[in-house]
Amino acid sequence: MSDPRPIRIDNLQYANWSEKIFRQMREGGVDAVHVTISYHENFRETVLNIEKWNRWFEQFPDLIFHGKWADDVEAARASGRTAIFFGFQNPSPIEDDIGLVEIVHALGARFMQLTYNNQSLLATGCYEAKDTGITRMGRQVIKEMNRVGLVIDMSHSAERSTLEAIEISERPIAITHANPAFWMPALRNKSDDVLKALAASGGMLGFSMYPHHLKDKTECTLESFCQMIVATADLMGIDHIGIGSDLCQDQPDSVVEWMRVGRWSKEIDYGEGSKDNAGFPPQPDWFTDNRDFGNIEQGLRSAGMSDEDVAKVMGGNWLAFYEANFSPL
Amino acid sequence: MSDPRPIRIDNLQYANWSEKIFRQMREGGVDAVHVTISYHENFRETVLNIEKWNRWFEQFPDLIFHGKWADDVEAARASGRTAIFFGFQNPSPIEDDIGLVEIVHALGARFMQLTYNNQSLLATGCYEAKDTGITRMGRQVIKEMNRVGLVIDMSHSAERSTLEAIEISERPIAITHANPAFWMPALRNKSDDVLKALAASGGMLGFSMYPHHLKDKTECTLESFCQMIVATADLMGIDHIGIGSDLCQDQPDSVVEWMRVGRWSKEIDYGEGSKDNAGFPPQPDWFTDNRDFGNIEQGLRSAGMSDEDVAKVMGGNWLAFYEANFSPL
Repeated sequence: MSDPRPIRIDNLQYANWSEKIFRQMREGGVDAVHVTISYHENFRETVLNIEKWNRWFEQFPDLIFHGKWADDVEAARASGRTAIFFGFQNPSPIEDDIGLVEIVHALGARFMQLTYNNQSLLATGCYEAKDTGITRMGRQVIKEMNRVGLVIDMSHSAERSTLEAIEISERPIAITHANPAFWMPALRNKSDDVLKALAASGGMLGFSMYPHHLKDKTECTLESFCQMIVATADLMGIDHIGIGSDLCQDQPDSVVEWMRVGRWSKEIDYGEGSKDNAGFPPQPDWFTDNRDFGNIEQGLRSAGMSDEDVAKVMGGNWLAFYEANFSPL
Repeated sequence: MSDPRPIRIDNLQYANWSEKIFRQMREGGVDAVHVTISYHENFRETVLNIEKWNRWFEQFPDLIFHGKWADDVEAARASGRTAIFFGFQNPSPIEDDIGLVEIVHALGARFMQLTYNNQSLLATGCYEAKDTGITRMGRQVIKEMNRVGLVIDMSHSAERSTLEAIEISERPIAITHANPAFWMPALRNKSDDVLKALAASGGMLGFSMYPHHLKDKTECTLESFCQMIVATADLMGIDHIGIGSDLCQDQPDSVVEWMRVGRWSKEIDYGEGSKDNAGFPPQPDWFTDNRDFGNIEQGLRSAGMSDEDVAKVMGGNWLAFYEANFSPL
C-alpha cells in the first residue's frame, strides 16, 4: 500500500450530520464510520432515515458514500472519501418480523443491537432490574443475523444476555461502543468476564469516548484513556479492540432525551445523566470531532504501543472484522 | 458459449408460485423471469412480498435465485437455475415518497409501471376516460428511476401518458406485457404510434399470452401469434421485442379480482373480462406453463424467422436491455 497512514475506522457515531462534519471526517483521515441510523424507529421510519442518507450521498459524493462491504474501506481510502456503514442501536427496525433481518441487510445495515437499554423482543437491556437472557425470538433472530451477515451488537445489553448472545451466535459479535468496567465502573461498561468471552469468540470491542463511559468523564485525560486501551489489549488480545467513539457531535439535548426515552415512557429517564445534568456532557478536549483521531494515535504511541498495534486499534481490526462478518454465510 | 440453446427470458409472470412452477421453469429452460411482486401493495406490504420470495430462495436454492443484474442471467444459465427479477405493476410501493425509488431498487426492483389501469400519482391508466399525461410527481419520479436504474413500464398506461413517458425518460422504457393493437384491438394493446416511438427510443415490447390480449383469445393459434411477432419486428425492428407472457398460472379467480379492484373500489370492475366471464380465461393450448417456450421458438422458425432473430426474441433482446438499464447512471 502506498499510503503509510494507518486505516482509521470509527465504529460508532451518531452526529447531527452536516457538510461540516463530513469535511471534518476527511480532514481527520477517517476512512470509514459506522453510523447509527435508528434508535427507536420502526421499519418505515428507519427507511426514511436511509432515504435521508441517500440524499447526503447524492449531495456530497466527493466526501462520503454508502459503505456496504469491507472492500469499500479500501475504495474510500483510494478515492479520498469516507465510507458510511449503517447500524441500529435497537432491534425496533425489524419490528416483530424476522424476515426484515434480510431486508435491512439488503438496505445496507451491518450492525444491530439486540437491545437498547430496555428489554426488547430479543434480549434484556442493561438498565432492566432483571436479565432473563436471550428470548425465543432472540435465538431465531441471532441465527438469521448470522445467516445474512448482520452483526450482533450488545453495547447496551445486560450481562447475561450478552454472554448468551456470544454463546449462541455462530459468528463473532461486537460491542461497538463501551469501555471496560475495570477502568470506569459505569453500568454501560463491560465486565472482564464479558470482555474475555467476547475476545475468545473472535468478537470486537470499540472504545467509547462518550464522557459517561470515561474515567473522570469530561476531565478524562488522553493518557488515562490510552493506558486503559493498553490494559484492555493485555486482557483481550490486541486483535479484538478498536474505536467506537459514540461521538454525538452537534446534537441538541432534545436528541439525548429521544435516545433515552424514545416513545416508551411518558416520564423522563435520565439514563447515564441526571436531573441536574440531563443534556449531552461536553467531550474531553482531546476528542471533540473527527479531526482528533491523530491525538489517539499519538496517545497510544506515547503509552508504549508499537506502530503495528496502533494500526490494528485505529482501524485494522475493524477492517478484518468487516471482511469476515458482513457477507452472507 | 457452450450451450447452443437461445437464452430464454420471460419478462412478466404473476403465477401462484410453488415448487411445481419453479421446476417447470427448469424443465422449460427458462433462464430468467421478471415476476410481479406488487399490484396494489403499499411499501410495507411490498416488503412482505419480498420476504416471501426470500423464503422461496432459501427453500429452493437449486431452482431459483434473486436476479439483480444482467450478469445473473448468465449465472443462472451456468448453474442450471432461473434468475427471478422483481417488478411492480403499479407505483403503489413508492407511495407518495420519491426516496422509496432508490430503496426499492436496493431491494431488487427492476421494473415499475407508472400506472396500473387507473390514474396514479404519476400518470394515467388505460381505463380512465381522460388521459392527462405525466403528472408533476411523475416527471420527478421518471428522473429518479432513470438515475437509480428502475425501468419504467407502461403496459397498463394510457396512450398520451405512454408517449410522454417515452419522451421524458432519458433511458429507454419498456412495455413488458402487451401486444400490438393492429393484431388485436384490445384496450391494453398498443398503437403503431406507441410501438414506433418505443422502438425509436431504444425501448422494448414484451409479447403477452394472456388470452384477453390475443386475437381470438383462448382460441388464438400459435401461427397467428408468431406471424404477429414477425409483423411487429417489421414495424419496430428485431432488436426491440421479446416475451412478457403475463402467465398467471394456478391463480384462483379471487386474484384476478384483486388485480382489477385492489381496494380502490367497493364495486366490482371486470377489467378485460365481463360479468359472465369474470375469472382468469383459459390459456391457449400451446402456452399453458413454463415448459411451453419451445413451442414459441418453433413457431417463430416456422413463421420464417432466422435462428439469430429467434434468439433475440426469446431472450437476447431482454438481456441486452437488462445490461443497459438496471445499473445506476
